[in-house]
Amino acid sequence: MQVENLNPHDLTKENVHPLRLNALREKMTAEGIDFFLIPTADFHQSEYVAPYFKTRAFFSGFTGSSGTLLVGRENDFAGLWTDGRYFTQAEKELTGSGVELFRMQEKDVPTIEEFLKDHLKEGGVLGFDGRCLSAKQAQTIKEKIGHAVTFRSELDPADGIWTGRPARPAGPVLLLDEEKIAGETAVSKLQRLRAEMEKEGVAYFVSSKLDDIAWLLNIRGTDIECNPVVLSHIFVDKDGFALFLQDVDVDDRLPAHIEAAGGEIRSYDGFVSYLEGRDYPDGKVLLDRAGTSYQVADVLQKKTGDAEDAIVDKLSPLAHMKAIKNETEMKNARAAYLDDSVALTKFIYWMRMRAEKAARDGDEYLTDPIDTFAVDGEDSLGAYLNEYTAAMRLDDMRRQIPDFVELSFPTISAYGANAAMAHYEATQKDHADLKPSGMYLVDSGGQYLRGTTDVTRTIALGPVTEEMRRHYTLTLAGTLRLQNAVFLEGCTGRNLDILARMELWKDGVDYKHGTGHGIGALLNVHEGPQRISWQKMTPDEEMKAGMIVSDEPGVYREGEYGIRIETILLTVNKCESADGKFLGFDALTYVPLDKRLIDRSLLPSDVLKMLDEYQQAVFEKLSPYLSEEERAWLKEETTAE
Amino acid sequence: MQVENLNPHDLTKENVHPLRLNALREKMTAEGIDFFLIPTADFHQSEYVAPYFKTRAFFSGFTGSSGTLLVGRENDFAGLWTDGRYFTQAEKELTGSGVELFRMQEKDVPTIEEFLKDHLKEGGVLGFDGRCLSAKQAQTIKEKIGHAVTFRSELDPADGIWTGRPARPAGPVLLLDEEKIAGETAVSKLQRLRAEMEKEGVAYFVSSKLDDIAWLLNIRGTDIECNPVVLSHIFVDKDGFALFLQDVDVDDRLPAHIEAAGGEIRSYDGFVSYLEGRDYPDGKVLLDRAGTSYQVADVLQKKTGDAEDAIVDKLSPLAHMKAIKNETEMKNARAAYLDDSVALTKFIYWMRMRAEKAARDGDEYLTDPIDTFAVDGEDSLGAYLNEYTAAMRLDDMRRQIPDFVELSFPTISAYGANAAMAHYEATQKDHADLKPSGMYLVDSGGQYLRGTTDVTRTIALGPVTEEMRRHYTLTLAGTLRLQNAVFLEGCTGRNLDILARMELWKDGVDYKHGTGHGIGALLNVHEGPQRISWQKMTPDEEMKAGMIVSDEPGVYREGEYGIRIETILLTVNKCESADGKFLGFDALTYVPLDKRLIDRSLLPSDVLKMLDEYQQAVFEKLSPYLSEEERAWLKEETTAE
Repeated sequence: MQVENLNPHDLTKENVHPLRLNALREKMTAEGIDFFLIPTADFHQSEYVAPYFKTRAFFSGFTGSSGTLLVGRENDFAGLWTDGRYFTQAEKELTGSGVELFRMQEKDVPTIEEFLKDHLKEGGVLGFDGRCLSAKQAQTIKEKIGHAVTFRSELDPADGIWTGRPARPAGPVLLLDEEKIAGETAVSKLQRLRAEMEKEGVAYFVSSKLDDIAWLLNIRGTDIECNPVVLSHIFVDKDGFALFLQDVDVDDRLPAHIEAAGGEIRSYDGFVSYLEGRDYPDGKVLLDRAGTSYQVADVLQKKTGDAEDAIVDKLSPLAHMKAIKNETEMKNARAAYLDDSVALTKFIYWMRMRAEKAARDGDEYLTDPIDTFAVDGEDSLGAYLNEYTAAMRLDDMRRQIPDFVELSFPTISAYGANAAMAHYEATQKDHADLKPSGMYLVDSGGQYLRGTTDVTRTIALGPVTEEMRRHYTLTLAGTLRLQNAVFLEGCTGRNLDILARMELWKDGVDYKHGTGHGIGALLNVHEGPQRISWQKMTPDEEMKAGMIVSDEPGVYREGEYGIRIETILLTVNKCESADGKFLGFDALTYVPLDKRLIDRSLLPSDVLKMLDEYQQAVFEKLSPYLSEEERAWLKEETTAE
Repeated sequence: MQVENLNPHDLTKENVHPLRLNALREKMTAEGIDFFLIPTADFHQSEYVAPYFKTRAFFSGFTGSSGTLLVGRENDFAGLWTDGRYFTQAEKELTGSGVELFRMQEKDVPTIEEFLKDHLKEGGVLGFDGRCLSAKQAQTIKEKIGHAVTFRSELDPADGIWTGRPARPAGPVLLLDEEKIAGETAVSKLQRLRAEMEKEGVAYFVSSKLDDIAWLLNIRGTDIECNPVVLSHIFVDKDGFALFLQDVDVDDRLPAHIEAAGGEIRSYDGFVSYLEGRDYPDGKVLLDRAGTSYQVADVLQKKTGDAEDAIVDKLSPLAHMKAIKNETEMKNARAAYLDDSVALTKFIYWMRMRAEKAARDGDEYLTDPIDTFAVDGEDSLGAYLNEYTAAMRLDDMRRQIPDFVELSFPTISAYGANAAMAHYEATQKDHADLKPSGMYLVDSGGQYLRGTTDVTRTIALGPVTEEMRRHYTLTLAGTLRLQNAVFLEGCTGRNLDILARMELWKDGVDYKHGTGHGIGALLNVHEGPQRISWQKMTPDEEMKAGMIVSDEPGVYREGEYGIRIETILLTVNKCESADGKFLGFDALTYVPLDKRLIDRSLLPSDVLKMLDEYQQAVFEKLSPYLSEEERAWLKEETTAE
């Protein structure tokens, strides 16, 4: 069954995926399974997953961060469902894999559920790893299929097939300074959680959400790249809690910290048997079916006697609590964002100088004066400055900030047409060289002890077209309008989104992504529950003082260019009158907007005022941290002509 | 039991309501009913009801258009629940009635359901007229009470008590010209309805919504003042339909019209026994529980064997179909709104001239040169121009438009502090006289064969404060921003609302009502399902080309002044690009905005442009219909200084 061992000499890049799929089909035949569903997920419904969990990529060859594989026992069927962001990549990567691409949301393309409804007969068997599919997803599949089918959820499809599987991540567990970093003790957070449990009328709370658990207990880890979380589960009752951890190195103070908070540490792999083994005499269980595995929800449902109301399915109270930053987190975030803004601004200055030099010298490409990344005995990356080496330089500048931990996501460094791809990642092998013309987009961020940053700027490396300036200017109007919004308490991101799009929409232009996402505090760069989007969304969460959101409109022209401007905002109280309480935003990001890309004649007077005020604030905040040359340049850059 | 007959000499203004309530309590004792619920409703869940249905006002004395009375058998309890718009009026009208006022949404004030939960014991009996309470309301009450109670729904509380009860309205039924007015035949509308029924998988459709039925069959009536509808119910199946009408005068062509469309006319009062008497062999029934009486839903539920899915509860497809105006309706609406705008503009000119004369002459009050409304043998209304006589004059100017049918709602003519009350109505007895200072607000509209109009303008009658100008200017910015919005297909009113409020919110000012409502075509001036409001709402309906909505922000300062500017908009397709289809609005209303109330220095350049374009359009559209003096005034009025 171990395909890579079976006949290693026959394995080629071309046949490896069909052979892996066939090995799975043999297993399915043995087990009587008609279709096997392989989502992109770990046991925690994380947005990004560690290599150990990349089973879908192992079988299909498709490496994008979002997609679901369905393997049929018969007719050599295998299908991969993914969305518009990944069509090009999936087409390329699936070539020769024997996997058919299903372009989600395109006309006449069935959803996975519709496909199963048509192809999985009454009484048929659907296999999936019950640890990797959420209870909600499984329920939706069952409902949409409509007729009776059997779920087999106890098999890991990669077992016995994926011989070279990376180890499950098991990094050390760190404890945060509760006073200087967390700003609230785990004890206090647990108290607040229990108050919420009481409000909901539940006696037990179960969660596998890694960022929620890390936030609650003031712990951090390294188990997912760029997401400083710890593989863990938690079970909380009225008096105590159990934290389920792998056998890993932990901060010396951790056992005492957990015990002092009334908890005990148990084995990660014993989580389900713990849930199965205990009783639930005191009342209901609160969990979020969308964030809980099918396996866990199934066990709890059975244990609580299948009573319909024994499980309260609701977004975790921790999601709401975590979203509202406390005073310490806010203070730290302001400081971290300032340092981060300084680093990016210095990088932009440096890029600008390289571009100006190339233009002066009549060079076709930008060059790097120091071949920073040349390594003895390896190929030099070359003296040309390219998307990849530029990203390396920026990452390096961030690394010099004292409390830097890691990047908050892989830097998107995209020149020209590459910037039109929202999820572009330049590599050492595959990248564009930079020329002194057109636009360059950089979307990047860091994890610092003081918080998680994210920022995007688009800059001109040389001459640009009128259309580029027009689109940049209208995008900028959107960023500024949202940044300067004042809104009544009770508003959600659905109310605010149009502020970021109104000028673009008047031009018949739209960007096909949300305007803003929440951001963690030394946690995930994408964090709910708040969101800024005009589309109907669940939850549709009220904006509250202390919430951090991104503000990132853009314009994308496939094959030509991409523009995105992203400023991070902290929600604050603005004023209170007889008519109510009004909220607004403070910018956390202070990085200049490229004046060469701005056509001031397109901007209404109120937006011009916002622009000039922001540029002025950028200069005032950053200038103490810049060299004389940088400061002179920034002065000029932030002064309206 | 007939209280007004029992002891007529003892009846006074002070004791009439307690006596009526006691008569009801006697009935409740005889029937074993603990509480009796009396909503403000007819058998059709209409927004406005005919005098026959004003049972709540009969028992309580409170005449506001919204409120619910709950009468207890014991302790002389009676409570009236109403919202903030009516607190002042209710306090006044309830004095001495023995009815306690429950201020809805105020702190510590229980809802009716909470009150019943606490005061109606397990096994208790709640009475209500099952024809007047919607199935949805009854369901909510049952759910919120929580414990088991019995509903008694077959009694009309006024029976045998309300001796002088007005007759049930029974006006003639008129048939619209299908080509020139309706723009679509009833046959075609029925075809579309059946297509929607098929989509929903239902065999039967039931509706009691008067505007939906009138729209579907191209009939109109006079049964509710300002709402040209006919008391009726409808039952539609795959092949035919039954229209339930009172025995009234009908258009000669009506029987043939109904027959040709495959329908039959049945007796209005036989509706429920028809539903009870027939079978439902072909499938499910579609109805909207929020728009259907408890009685009707109850009968259908029992007839369909209490199967949970036999009734599909959904907003009527007619609501969606009716909301999207056809080409004929749109053409007619544009023309009707133009005539209506001319009438209001002439009225404003006349008011302005009266105000200027008073200022010139040093008069304290505006005067009416012709005492238009003096009637022989009655008191003259006086030569002073007041809110009431001003409204009479405006109504009279509307009446001169050839296809005028009636007003679309009673004209709101409010001077000074009275304008701060959103539902103010001046009467012959109770009104303010007009002075040549401060602001005057007029919100009015007509029913024309070509459509239903609605418009609000606020004008200066003389000197105003800086704060008034500031608030008028920010309100105006909101109207114009919404009017000029461009938005992607799929947006709802929840996405758009902030455009009307953003400038006010920046000033810490809000208005406590929605920004926009849909409007019928020679139908109700409030029509769903679309709405413009930032708050969460159900349904949350997408804006579609052909929908008419109002755009009416305002500022209200209790005891001081009120500002509202309302322009009616028609949703239209704006442009289509690679990024999607974009919608926008055409104004239907063309009435000048009062330049003396505008502080241009507060307006950003884009809003100034919208303002000047609108004022210019007003002049161009209206000037052909004005006298020379009026035209000269309008030219000046619409030209920016």
